[in-house]
Amino acid sequence: MIAGQGRLAPAVVAALEDPQVHALEGFAPDIPATPFRLERLVPFLDHLLDSGVTRVVFAGAVRRPRLDPEAFDPRTAQLVPRILAAMQSGDDTALRTVLDIFEESGLSVCSVSEILPDLVPGEGILTGTTSEADRRDAARAAAILRATGPLDLGQGTVVAQGLCLALETLPGTAAMLDFAARHANLRPNPEGARGVFYKAPKPGQDRRIDLPTLGPDSVTQAAAAGLAGIAWEAGGVILLDRDEAVARADAAGLFLWSMPPDA
Amino acid sequence: MIAGQGRLAPAVVAALEDPQVHALEGFAPDIPATPFRLERLVPFLDHLLDSGVTRVVFAGAVRRPRLDPEAFDPRTAQLVPRILAAMQSGDDTALRTVLDIFEESGLSVCSVSEILPDLVPGEGILTGTTSEADRRDAARAAAILRATGPLDLGQGTVVAQGLCLALETLPGTAAMLDFAARHANLRPNPEGARGVFYKAPKPGQDRRIDLPTLGPDSVTQAAAAGLAGIAWEAGGVILLDRDEAVARADAAGLFLWSMPPDA
Repeated sequence: MIAGQGRLAPAVVAALEDPQVHALEGFAPDIPATPFRLERLVPFLDHLLDSGVTRVVFAGAVRRPRLDPEAFDPRTAQLVPRILAAMQSGDDTALRTVLDIFEESGLSVCSVSEILPDLVPGEGILTGTTSEADRRDAARAAAILRATGPLDLGQGTVVAQGLCLALETLPGTAAMLDFAARHANLRPNPEGARGVFYKAPKPGQDRRIDLPTLGPDSVTQAAAAGLAGIAWEAGGVILLDRDEAVARADAAGLFLWSMPPDA
Repeated sequence: MIAGQGRLAPAVVAALEDPQVHALEGFAPDIPATPFRLERLVPFLDHLLDSGVTRVVFAGAVRRPRLDPEAFDPRTAQLVPRILAAMQSGDDTALRTVLDIFEESGLSVCSVSEILPDLVPGEGILTGTTSEADRRDAARAAAILRATGPLDLGQGTVVAQGLCLALETLPGTAAMLDFAARHANLRPNPEGARGVFYKAPKPGQDRRIDLPTLGPDSVTQAAAAGLAGIAWEAGGVILLDRDEAVARADAAGLFLWSMPPDA
């Protein structure tokens, strides 16, 4: 398991039997993990294969590491053009390059949903009720993410009364919801629909890595932004700690809606 | 002249001979203006025509006003479905509806660039120098705005090292640059390209209204976000107070680049 930061890695590791857990140096997860450096990726892959590893799962957030030119081993150094090109691309391209390099070494990469299908909700309303205006806002949000997907910007947006309040970019979801909270007073009709935070994977993205993730903190942040609820593409988003997320949504009066992709 | 908020309206009014200046109630500009209410738009248009007005120019920022159902006169009340549909749409659709209603009354709407062509810079670097990385960032920013244009989100974006740091949404440019400043530390390479703030009109937007506007404050905000410079689509953006904007860019070491649309 390649563990990243946040609450996904502990949830996945708990479901694995006797896993080897590694993490990119500088991005220590909340569980014990042996660090590796991107500058020594090829020896690291050799080490995994030598110790009998055949399958790898990625779980958790990793940012682009800074690279130390002196730390490269000769074989990883030959990958530098690919690594640099990947790091200068959007998230999706960068992660696809990482998956490619792992698979070229002979390891197979499996998805979190293969290991823990319950983490990826199917269609349905988990709590609360959606108004017609909420459903319109969610549908517009889904349309915005479908259209911006090829640009590889982010996996979330906030739409209220048909208007896009925020679109996720490099700084991520929490930064976007903080932005929406700062500017919550801009809704045209202060008595109207409060708006929806929507998440979906990018169209065509590799679902073995970097699925958008929601959890109890998302609910708290959406409530702080004055939103009516959270919607996401059913089957394409990880929901961490579902019971706590639902409890917080109930307490704050938010809906949680795992939307059919064609809603 | 229909005056909005900000520095554009005073610049335009200074160039007009004996203008009638009006402004939407609740959005008083920095110049004397007779207010009108959207709920009484039809009588207002009649008043303009009765007083001999034939041409109208819009200058400055207006947000969606709150509507008082009791304030509508009977004829404007018949426009309510159009007005509400427009207010629930993105900026572009909303403004196009306003232009349509003005023109249907017999008034012609002219653009700021017809009155003050010097406010809309043609191609060229106004100050500073652009690196190859800056030009790549500007080209990626232009591509992002071309692709997001049909979604009617906003007219600005911030791109650094090929990555989108921020995309303008309903809260506007200043909010976006404030967001970029808060998250400026996320650039992958802290020693690399600092990034570009880019502005362009939406593809296909009506250029008689709501041209994106830059000015000295944009320069100060871009500098605060740690950016290398500002680029925009030549011929499609208003630059207010050019001398002061250039002076501030010089002082902060930023470039100002009026880019050819196909750069």
